[in-house]
Amino acid sequence: MVTLQALLGTELPLIQAPMAGVQGSALAIAVSNAGGLGSLPCAMLSLEALRNELVALRAGTRRPYNVNFFCHTHPLPDAARDAAWRDALAPYYREFGLDASNLPTGAARVPFGRESAELLSEFKPAVVSFHFGLPSDELLAHVRSWGAKVLSSATTVDEALWLQARSVDAIIAQGLEAGGHRGHFLRDDLTAQMGTFALLPQIVRAVSVPVIAAGGIADARGVAAAQTLGAAGVQVGTAYMLCTESTTSGLHRAALQSETARHTALTNLFTGRPARGIVNRAMRELGPLSAVAPAFPLAANAMAPLRAAAEARGSGDFSPLWSGQNADGCKAVPAAQLTRELMAGWARR
Amino acid sequence: MVTLQALLGTELPLIQAPMAGVQGSALAIAVSNAGGLGSLPCAMLSLEALRNELVALRAGTRRPYNVNFFCHTHPLPDAARDAAWRDALAPYYREFGLDASNLPTGAARVPFGRESAELLSEFKPAVVSFHFGLPSDELLAHVRSWGAKVLSSATTVDEALWLQARSVDAIIAQGLEAGGHRGHFLRDDLTAQMGTFALLPQIVRAVSVPVIAAGGIADARGVAAAQTLGAAGVQVGTAYMLCTESTTSGLHRAALQSETARHTALTNLFTGRPARGIVNRAMRELGPLSAVAPAFPLAANAMAPLRAAAEARGSGDFSPLWSGQNADGCKAVPAAQLTRELMAGWARR
Repeated sequence: MVTLQALLGTELPLIQAPMAGVQGSALAIAVSNAGGLGSLPCAMLSLEALRNELVALRAGTRRPYNVNFFCHTHPLPDAARDAAWRDALAPYYREFGLDASNLPTGAARVPFGRESAELLSEFKPAVVSFHFGLPSDELLAHVRSWGAKVLSSATTVDEALWLQARSVDAIIAQGLEAGGHRGHFLRDDLTAQMGTFALLPQIVRAVSVPVIAAGGIADARGVAAAQTLGAAGVQVGTAYMLCTESTTSGLHRAALQSETARHTALTNLFTGRPARGIVNRAMRELGPLSAVAPAFPLAANAMAPLRAAAEARGSGDFSPLWSGQNADGCKAVPAAQLTRELMAGWARR
Repeated sequence: MVTLQALLGTELPLIQAPMAGVQGSALAIAVSNAGGLGSLPCAMLSLEALRNELVALRAGTRRPYNVNFFCHTHPLPDAARDAAWRDALAPYYREFGLDASNLPTGAARVPFGRESAELLSEFKPAVVSFHFGLPSDELLAHVRSWGAKVLSSATTVDEALWLQARSVDAIIAQGLEAGGHRGHFLRDDLTAQMGTFALLPQIVRAVSVPVIAAGGIADARGVAAAQTLGAAGVQVGTAYMLCTESTTSGLHRAALQSETARHTALTNLFTGRPARGIVNRAMRELGPLSAVAPAFPLAANAMAPLRAAAEARGSGDFSPLWSGQNADGCKAVPAAQLTRELMAGWARR
């Protein structure tokens, strides 16, 4: 089998996980220049912002980088659920003296579409990764037209087989320890989600494409353990969140460095889909999994004013404090240094 | 630090996980004679049955073995909850033509107590392990009086620190992938439970006693990965369930070898405490986590007749099909062979 490095054109078998909200092109550039595969999270970017970031990437590195997109279907309106959600949040709106009558109704996160694909074709990124499955065959063909390698996440063996059947170049096995959005797309039942120790070897056994381990990998020993379990490479997110080039907020940085980071949970409060973050007041009082949170990505709209008001008071009570279950590896160092330290665990064979 | 083998007096740093319902002394003897630490699950044994098993162990091996006990507190009666539970099960009682009027009300699982401790003192097992915390200081002193080493499971860093403060000799880090009962005892919130990849290194970092990895370890590569993450040894359960010396039922064996084993969940339906088993009809239709299931261990009583009736028809619909998230390592071989195969992954350093 071809190595992941040969497939991606990188020096190292390491992907910096795309993390919307805590990083942009600067982190991706630093990791790519250090020999890994830097990633740009694109789901929350307007076309204009995406262009600006791609321009920055092209200027900042001559090495391969990855652009990451979501592949969800936009939900149908559900007035009853929206009303129940507003009711659930009403006490907090009163507490902060906020007006709930003029909330935005649009989507802060948009699925990969034709306009993004056309923009990408100007920049020809070496790698395009997707979360929540894959886009349409037509869009996928468009991405492949300039030779981009295609990656996506699997959270079960079934999802890995589904992705392999659609000819992805490599599969990210996303263990339950991973921070941010779970990538599941074939079934919503969260009990089907597995820890990295169980998921990774089962996917490695089931497919013939390279498998990238994600979830709980925080240091060189984690990288070595993932390799031992059969991974062709690793994807690391949380450990990069304190890096110099990350845009993680001060509140979020403080939470990652505190004891509170030892307790994360999957929550749908902030976007409508389950994502792992540090447990905070909103998660304790409302969920963390609420039956009335609007479908992805619409839950974000009513939570945003609460987040802004709380953060203005120095509180992360209503912020999505994304983190994996292992924040022990977070270091406030340049990303290039962290990349080297992580890769010290990878044995060249 | 002393090695786990030196601490336990074994040749190998491997503990066969105690698994009530699918094994007795025969499996423990086979593993101990192979150089690992065989374990006898004692929570469901009467004093007489416990004596018989201890006699068998003494006759069967001259090597160290482990006896495992639960440390729960017996619940207070809750007539309303019992009634709600009977209501939830009533359609199934009708389906099988069963009478719900004469169910047992006792406990099939009893916590470690003075009588068990006195019986143990005749046999002086080298190792005693506990689940759900530890027994009273008095009972613990009793167990230590003949030099037994004491182990218990931690599912969070806090639990590991709690156990270390009470001078346990080693700590089993039970990752979320593990089959059977979760060992948590400081908090019931299941979101605090972590995958092995995240839990193990965090506990290793937090404590100074040897840490034994459990959860998702199914083969030699898993053993090697656990060692890489800092484990002093491993505890393996699910992989032993098809072994010659196990008493796993035919139904359970078939489930472990089928695709259905890929989907396990934590369920409280069978005992009242969350335990991981293969998803079956009862878990799909009632839960898997039911708010009306009686407190541990009383939920077992009303489920037992359904289990018996279904099993008589060749169905595991109402059986606790305990399994970890990685059943890929299950092999129908003698336990000594499986022990050797697993330990091929352990590097002597």
